[in-house]
Amino acid sequence: MRTLKVALLGCGVVGSDVAHYLAAHEPELTARIGARVELAGVAVRRADLPRPGVPSHLIAADADALVTRGDIDVVIEVIGGTDRAHDLVGKAFAHGASVVSANKALIAAEGAALHAAARAHGVDLRYEAAVAGAVPLLRPLRESLAGDRVTRVLGIVNGTTNFILDRMDSAGWDYPRALKEAMALGYAEADPTADVEGHDAAAKAAIVAGLAFDTRVRIDEVHREGISGITAADTAAARAQGCVIKLLALCDRRADGDVTVRVHPAMLPLSHPLASVRDAFNAVFVEAEAAGQLMFYGPGAGGAPTASAVLGDLVEVCRNRLAGVTGSGDTAHEQRRVRPVGDVVTRYHVTLDVADRPGVLSEVAHVLDRHGVSVESLRQERGDDGCRLSLSTHRATDAVLSSAVEALGALTAVRGVPRALRVEGA
Amino acid sequence: MRTLKVALLGCGVVGSDVAHYLAAHEPELTARIGARVELAGVAVRRADLPRPGVPSHLIAADADALVTRGDIDVVIEVIGGTDRAHDLVGKAFAHGASVVSANKALIAAEGAALHAAARAHGVDLRYEAAVAGAVPLLRPLRESLAGDRVTRVLGIVNGTTNFILDRMDSAGWDYPRALKEAMALGYAEADPTADVEGHDAAAKAAIVAGLAFDTRVRIDEVHREGISGITAADTAAARAQGCVIKLLALCDRRADGDVTVRVHPAMLPLSHPLASVRDAFNAVFVEAEAAGQLMFYGPGAGGAPTASAVLGDLVEVCRNRLAGVTGSGDTAHEQRRVRPVGDVVTRYHVTLDVADRPGVLSEVAHVLDRHGVSVESLRQERGDDGCRLSLSTHRATDAVLSSAVEALGALTAVRGVPRALRVEGA
Repeated sequence: MRTLKVALLGCGVVGSDVAHYLAAHEPELTARIGARVELAGVAVRRADLPRPGVPSHLIAADADALVTRGDIDVVIEVIGGTDRAHDLVGKAFAHGASVVSANKALIAAEGAALHAAARAHGVDLRYEAAVAGAVPLLRPLRESLAGDRVTRVLGIVNGTTNFILDRMDSAGWDYPRALKEAMALGYAEADPTADVEGHDAAAKAAIVAGLAFDTRVRIDEVHREGISGITAADTAAARAQGCVIKLLALCDRRADGDVTVRVHPAMLPLSHPLASVRDAFNAVFVEAEAAGQLMFYGPGAGGAPTASAVLGDLVEVCRNRLAGVTGSGDTAHEQRRVRPVGDVVTRYHVTLDVADRPGVLSEVAHVLDRHGVSVESLRQERGDDGCRLSLSTHRATDAVLSSAVEALGALTAVRGVPRALRVEGA
Repeated sequence: MRTLKVALLGCGVVGSDVAHYLAAHEPELTARIGARVELAGVAVRRADLPRPGVPSHLIAADADALVTRGDIDVVIEVIGGTDRAHDLVGKAFAHGASVVSANKALIAAEGAALHAAARAHGVDLRYEAAVAGAVPLLRPLRESLAGDRVTRVLGIVNGTTNFILDRMDSAGWDYPRALKEAMALGYAEADPTADVEGHDAAAKAAIVAGLAFDTRVRIDEVHREGISGITAADTAAARAQGCVIKLLALCDRRADGDVTVRVHPAMLPLSHPLASVRDAFNAVFVEAEAAGQLMFYGPGAGGAPTASAVLGDLVEVCRNRLAGVTGSGDTAHEQRRVRPVGDVVTRYHVTLDVADRPGVLSEVAHVLDRHGVSVESLRQERGDDGCRLSLSTHRATDAVLSSAVEALGALTAVRGVPRALRVEGA
């Protein structure tokens, strides 16, 4: 029986679980691949640290030497980041190795170049773990739905922000307290920017939209808003509307074939299946012409779930290697225009603090009329010092809705800045 | 560009949608396969009936002639049934064609023989559509989780029975009325036996358990109970316990490596994600050692969703054909013992009508003690003519629980037959 050699780049939370399950699931891996898989080396930045479960003779400080030694069949890249990872993956390809990566930033930024390099060297590139952890999403999009036409992907793809928003909703906490709890539990990093400002979700949205719509979406084409501006008052206002706030990745294919890709917090009705996704779980809705609505749900991060996805890809690329073929590569055979967020058709929920005097409501209504925005529902609450006006609009383009909100903010009767949140999934 | 020829066997609800989407999604199919796909013939039982959307010169009454003509690359089998389908699929293999089937009865009964025949002829056999319609389940089990160890699959895999049970629960209907409604809406067939008695779900459970646990499960090894005995009183009793009744397919891998596979109605807590699966939808929970809990959800039947799954498989087998390879075939490399249902560890909810006299409760408790069954909760309601006793047990083997229920039924104080339902997902 043949033995395939695997090099592991990175031995942090994910890498050490990859190494663990490579050993623990060895009988299954051997049977399913039809060959033995041997861990040939583990590249780490600090070779002097203890790595429980990894034989010390496999630890290598020189990642370049490991990927270029010439006998490696598959390189597993779980170091993260872009430049160094790109360099190592490129060297792995050039030395005949297929690559399995869990690195969404790398794939979102360099997917096209990496697919081209893999193709040029006749090897595979796979990255199921880069989006939604253990949840099978990229393979179903690329293979199960290969005979269908995907029209929308709507998902919760960042566990950190879902944890924070879930705590704000269920416990009534404000954002700083929920963020602190997420940090204490290890869901958020010391610098949480990549998660809370939506960069992580935007990278995943770019990958998913590209696959779903057979095109290329650059990360700078993804409209991105984070959750750091969401307040306890926003969460309460959403609840009062029978909604929760979730950070959503929304990838849409328009009837004209163009696409929109965006990541932002949005209000979602409690009846929507994504509304009940708690804690740090991920869930993704996919709509396709023939299949209808599908949902995929599971743990979106963590060492073991990510390792599960990595090893699933490993089995595929090993099988391909034994058969002397490569699997389906880059699927970006369409050149679709990525439209700006202003072209998205959506609904807004707007909260305004206004003076308590006659005529205010008609001024507000006039502004909305002038912009062609139609009101679905409106509620006015009288306080000690004025009124709070909450309104939900009917559907319009984001450009129209946002300029209407801006015009509302300019009314003298309106105090402070209007709060506006998109409403999705209704 | 090469052209691959496809023969379609059957042109009913599913077949006509397959033909429709073959044409409608032609640009996607061509780009994703890297070859054109040509519908070369459609075998039907009644060649004289009109087939909208299918060119009349493609209609063939002689299915044998179609699959044996020698130039067919892929045969799509959606005629259903076992003997005739088996015969045709075997002939297709022998004449060099790969086969995509949506036929769970065929795969459950003849999967081993068919996989062997496909392998012998160097062609592919795929059947994603056979379980849970458009919901990607078999491919994720076989590929995405190929580096993991699946321990449990728990699913709602029959839409007809889910529709009936959902109506009984939400509208308070009795079984005959809900069945009638399911028939009127086309969810149930004129003879609903295959669905309501669990035969359809059992075939799917056999396929899923085999794939999940790398083994072979014969359909007669699946413990099977249908829903035709479920009463409005059962549904109400479940509600009173904060549960709904669902027809579940449960595939478990025990710590000793043996497996249990069963289909039966069970009470599921309302908090369980499967409890909120409404109408005729399907949903499947998968538990794996590294991945944790995953859920897959979507339309489990219907022409278009089934066609989506069929065409996804078509793309895969066409790609393989172009590459001159076959995909992963039979995965039954383990010989696992399928344990009888008596060995399953579960919980029961039992309802008894008993005489309203002192000492009855202690008689009941004595029977349970004697069987080693521990009570988790107990409720007694006094009626005009006796008492109704509801009790939930702690976990025990099904053999122990069922013999305790039998012994309870033999008590003179117990009137009629005790009602017992398993409680799962708690």
